[in-house]
Amino acid sequence: MDELIAKLKAALEPGSVLTGAEAAEKAQGGWMQAGVPEVLLRPVSTGEVSRALALCNAAGQPVVPWGGRTGLVKGTEVNGGIALSLDRMNRIEDIDTAGATATVQAGVILQTLCEAVEAKGMFFPLDLGGRGSATIGGNISTNAGGNRVIRYGMARDMVLGLEVVLADGTVLSSMNRLIKNNTGYDLKQLFIGAEGTLGIITRAVLRLRPRPLSQDTAFVALDSFEKLPLFLRHIERALGGTLSAFEVMWEDFYKLVTTEPAKGRPPIPHGMPYYVLVESLGGNQEEDSARFEAAMAAALDEGMLADAVIAKSQAERDAMWALRDDVIQVARQWPIFAFDVSLSISDMEGYIAEIRAAITAKWPTHSLMVFGHLGDGNLHVIAGIPDGAAKEHHELERIVYGALEKRRGSVSAEHGIGLEKRAYLGVTRTPEEIAVMRRLKAALDPRNILNPGKIFEPAPQAKAAE
Amino acid sequence: MDELIAKLKAALEPGSVLTGAEAAEKAQGGWMQAGVPEVLLRPVSTGEVSRALALCNAAGQPVVPWGGRTGLVKGTEVNGGIALSLDRMNRIEDIDTAGATATVQAGVILQTLCEAVEAKGMFFPLDLGGRGSATIGGNISTNAGGNRVIRYGMARDMVLGLEVVLADGTVLSSMNRLIKNNTGYDLKQLFIGAEGTLGIITRAVLRLRPRPLSQDTAFVALDSFEKLPLFLRHIERALGGTLSAFEVMWEDFYKLVTTEPAKGRPPIPHGMPYYVLVESLGGNQEEDSARFEAAMAAALDEGMLADAVIAKSQAERDAMWALRDDVIQVARQWPIFAFDVSLSISDMEGYIAEIRAAITAKWPTHSLMVFGHLGDGNLHVIAGIPDGAAKEHHELERIVYGALEKRRGSVSAEHGIGLEKRAYLGVTRTPEEIAVMRRLKAALDPRNILNPGKIFEPAPQAKAAE
Repeated sequence: MDELIAKLKAALEPGSVLTGAEAAEKAQGGWMQAGVPEVLLRPVSTGEVSRALALCNAAGQPVVPWGGRTGLVKGTEVNGGIALSLDRMNRIEDIDTAGATATVQAGVILQTLCEAVEAKGMFFPLDLGGRGSATIGGNISTNAGGNRVIRYGMARDMVLGLEVVLADGTVLSSMNRLIKNNTGYDLKQLFIGAEGTLGIITRAVLRLRPRPLSQDTAFVALDSFEKLPLFLRHIERALGGTLSAFEVMWEDFYKLVTTEPAKGRPPIPHGMPYYVLVESLGGNQEEDSARFEAAMAAALDEGMLADAVIAKSQAERDAMWALRDDVIQVARQWPIFAFDVSLSISDMEGYIAEIRAAITAKWPTHSLMVFGHLGDGNLHVIAGIPDGAAKEHHELERIVYGALEKRRGSVSAEHGIGLEKRAYLGVTRTPEEIAVMRRLKAALDPRNILNPGKIFEPAPQAKAAE
Repeated sequence: MDELIAKLKAALEPGSVLTGAEAAEKAQGGWMQAGVPEVLLRPVSTGEVSRALALCNAAGQPVVPWGGRTGLVKGTEVNGGIALSLDRMNRIEDIDTAGATATVQAGVILQTLCEAVEAKGMFFPLDLGGRGSATIGGNISTNAGGNRVIRYGMARDMVLGLEVVLADGTVLSSMNRLIKNNTGYDLKQLFIGAEGTLGIITRAVLRLRPRPLSQDTAFVALDSFEKLPLFLRHIERALGGTLSAFEVMWEDFYKLVTTEPAKGRPPIPHGMPYYVLVESLGGNQEEDSARFEAAMAAALDEGMLADAVIAKSQAERDAMWALRDDVIQVARQWPIFAFDVSLSISDMEGYIAEIRAAITAKWPTHSLMVFGHLGDGNLHVIAGIPDGAAKEHHELERIVYGALEKRRGSVSAEHGIGLEKRAYLGVTRTPEEIAVMRRLKAALDPRNILNPGKIFEPAPQAKAAE
């Protein structure tokens, strides 16, 4: 390692190569502790990333890319070795309002970008809890989802072009600004959601949207699960393309975030099994509000809804969203284990009933909080098991994923695999799929230096080569 | 070849392996003549596709996949050898209205699927001129675009899951039905738009949408190019998410399709430089029409539009779309050469002016028809050059693509590369990108049997291996 460090210091500017205590200090921060690297690279340019990877690749030295470290699946974990942070490549290079694109370096913070874009009258629709520290590069590497997938898709759908540095230092510049470009393989798709295992994203061209001119938000309650998809289809149709969030909370979660010590208060009384935060983003506040209210009234009239309240001010809208965002309340039931599953809406009720029964049988004192992006088929399931039972979390995983596998669900809707879910990749993916993933990994990173071991275990020959 | 044919006949059912005159006869049809294969495989199942590819791969025998053969870039061209048509795998397996998915075999005709889906109250939004003969497998293999990309994206955006047979016969089943599934590499992305060079798509899970309940269509005229993007942004915002088409016609094209012998008549008088077909698909006819009319009136008031007419009946709407679809009129200027370029809207006016000047200088008698999906940055440019000058079409390509390269445009927005545009791939893609495409090809199809030579020339080692 000492020889490699010397080469890196010779090839990069002084502040770009930190070691020892300096590296450890800068490795603090991020939501999740990702471990302490022996060397922390903080390149200032694509050229520096390229030179660093070329040297590491020649030395067969693994490199773990770091964005904002807000991931939840140990995708940035290190144990010594080299981490490469994009935090100093944080420039918004261009916001093109006519072309509706933003060109950014990978280390730009999501919220910073959203605010800069809104100041120019445009809109970047990615929105998630980590917005204040997550980086665009990390969002793309994990194909981030969040609150508005139902309208705007996931991070993948917002990327027009990427610049990526491959393991050997090759700079792959696909900084496409065009919406349509069918010229050979769409290479950027490979790197989106690959969790830094196929290349390091250094820059991106993002698609912007016109800034919405209206926002309508409501909280509703339903007395049975079967009415949820009916209400969803009704509202999708009635709003004609402006539905931008459909966030469901099971009763336990709703109570948790609307009861002290949580700061939120219930916009609708407790006592119903399901609550939904509904939002519409449109082009004309007066007309859109009229349409939104009519759609809600129709749903009430037709018996889909047991109760509904429409926000009448920005403060009320913000208070509704604050409930949804107050996920941290689940920590009150520590130790907790969080799952991010995806399955067909028609399977959800049976799925939750099955895991609730199994968890209750195993741990009579437990908590089970369920909420999520129902319109996207995505539920967050947070199980609190008794103190002292934390060692039994593999048993909990078997319950949650076993019931999911039967229903052909996904063990990760939006968080990714990292190390945390690697053992369960086979629940959702076939052996043939995993074999093709390994083939792609070997084709693009033959020495297995890029975030090795994340997503899947290294292939035996790659292990042997280390 | 005889030995391979014998093996294929032994492994597949009798009607699945046609040779000689039988193969030649079935090879008729399709918009474009794709050549006559020595053997035409017409498998009835994924298992047959798998067995056929395993045998061809073992023999090092190239296979050219065929969908509806409505492509425009010679992506299905054969010269003897083996073609594999999916035409007998044309079953719609399932339309799940609750989950909003359709599961189909690759040979289903686009229009057949759209009609079946609409009969169930849902909507599959892909729409293009070849709808009556193009297949879903071909649409996905070429990442088809079409008329409603501005609202619903391209074929890529409508695919949830794929089943693909790899070159060696491996069946890669990624028949995901979930909107969100971040479990490792999103393998389906590799095969979408790969023009059958990485695998043969046999089945797909498609995302459906609620069927729109309103349609509003208008034809407008503008007196300057600079008003086009202003009008586009205005209408996007004013309609709040329901804009579903923004199809621009330059004056020459508009005249062509509204003058005898064309059947169409001009909804707006000739004499303006730009005409646009605008469409909105929404959820409530009365409200949506009111909003649509108000948006048009505002655009007229603000001077963006020189003229506008809103369709008042389905017949009027159909007549407007018939103008846009009457592309065949350009054949009156034979010999013609069609281009499908994509570039920034702000570059379009200068681009068309530059190529018009260069073409006029070279061929004083010529025609130049321009129309396209302006909202997506996609123009179709159709140049008619003098009879007898057809041999000079490479000069025409140099003019069209030279002016495009300066503006960082794409030589193929939606048609793909095939053989037709292979020589110009480097206009839009860097050598590093093409090198990575070759690496992927080698990783997934090491013997280079799948549609070899399409998109890019075989790598030297693959050629040597043949």
